[in-house]
Amino acid sequence: MKKANLGSKVLMYPFPIVLFGSVVENKPNYSTVGNVGIMALRPATLYVSSHKSHYTNIGVRENKTFSVNFPSTDLVVESDYCGIVTGHKEDKSEVFKTYYGNIKTAPLIIECPVNISCRVIKEFMVGGMEVFIGKIDETYVNEDLVPERGKPDVIKIDPLLYSVDLNYYKIGEKIARAFSIGKEYKKKA
Amino acid sequence: MKKANLGSKVLMYPFPIVLFGSVVENKPNYSTVGNVGIMALRPATLYVSSHKSHYTNIGVRENKTFSVNFPSTDLVVESDYCGIVTGHKEDKSEVFKTYYGNIKTAPLIIECPVNISCRVIKEFMVGGMEVFIGKIDETYVNEDLVPERGKPDVIKIDPLLYSVDLNYYKIGEKIARAFSIGKEYKKKA
Repeated sequence: MKKANLGSKVLMYPFPIVLFGSVVENKPNYSTVGNVGIMALRPATLYVSSHKSHYTNIGVRENKTFSVNFPSTDLVVESDYCGIVTGHKEDKSEVFKTYYGNIKTAPLIIECPVNISCRVIKEFMVGGMEVFIGKIDETYVNEDLVPERGKPDVIKIDPLLYSVDLNYYKIGEKIARAFSIGKEYKKKA
Repeated sequence: MKKANLGSKVLMYPFPIVLFGSVVENKPNYSTVGNVGIMALRPATLYVSSHKSHYTNIGVRENKTFSVNFPSTDLVVESDYCGIVTGHKEDKSEVFKTYYGNIKTAPLIIECPVNISCRVIKEFMVGGMEVFIGKIDETYVNEDLVPERGKPDVIKIDPLLYSVDLNYYKIGEKIARAFSIGKEYKKKA
């Protein structure tokens, strides 16, 4: 297979979109971010990378807390809106209904099936982006998505995915069990 | 909607799986990692978080370079295998065919449609994980996936996604255009 060299490009998608939340001037604000990922499991730690100009960053810098809220695909209009419009110009506090857990400066979105609150344990700048490393304090999930045994079903969570071609996608079909299907390699080889 | 508080959990998926590569003792080694994400676009920067015990980390520490290779779903067996078996015990250098771009210590996988080589610009530890922040040096894509205009089609790349329920998934259908569908919010409200 011939390879095309595209130079220094971030061609690595899709990622789940999150509504990155903080409290600024006593109001919740949410901005739509795709630069989010897991850093560690114990302690549960994630990062969000958000441009230094973003309104949400103000509250994170001030309170050293933030939230990430995972919208389902039915929230695509509201989620995209929060990525187009800045809190510097418009009050986005009423786009979603907000509640709070332990941390009163990490606003959580009722309409989103998964909500995570974090305390900042590290922050640094990369190319105009502020990277906030957050230790997860609490994780809330819609009760009807939590099975009695096992883990929440990602198909039911129906996360909104964002891709390199500037489109949103759904998650597709299940292919295989992780840490299991690989055992077939030896047979195959 | 009632919310269940699951405590401090990393309930945030799916993410694209990558084969995280380095050269250890003059051989390419790949380990399967889901903790990967974008940090910045200019300069194009990403991170990989990989447990300090992983064999691949040895080469990254030594050479301050690494690769991330995005498998398509048809590579699920080989990809999962590289997550089950450690390079400390088995030589994984022949699981995939390797080539090199500019950086001779960042092995790239021919079978994967997208290959990215990086130089480490920052590293730190979180909960036993080594986090490597990499400035992207080169991005290679299978030539038949690069359209004359526009960006590579993520449906054709067919990335292997990994989810919280320990399963692999395909990407699903396109829902909407980003930075566009949100304009309907005002009409809707």
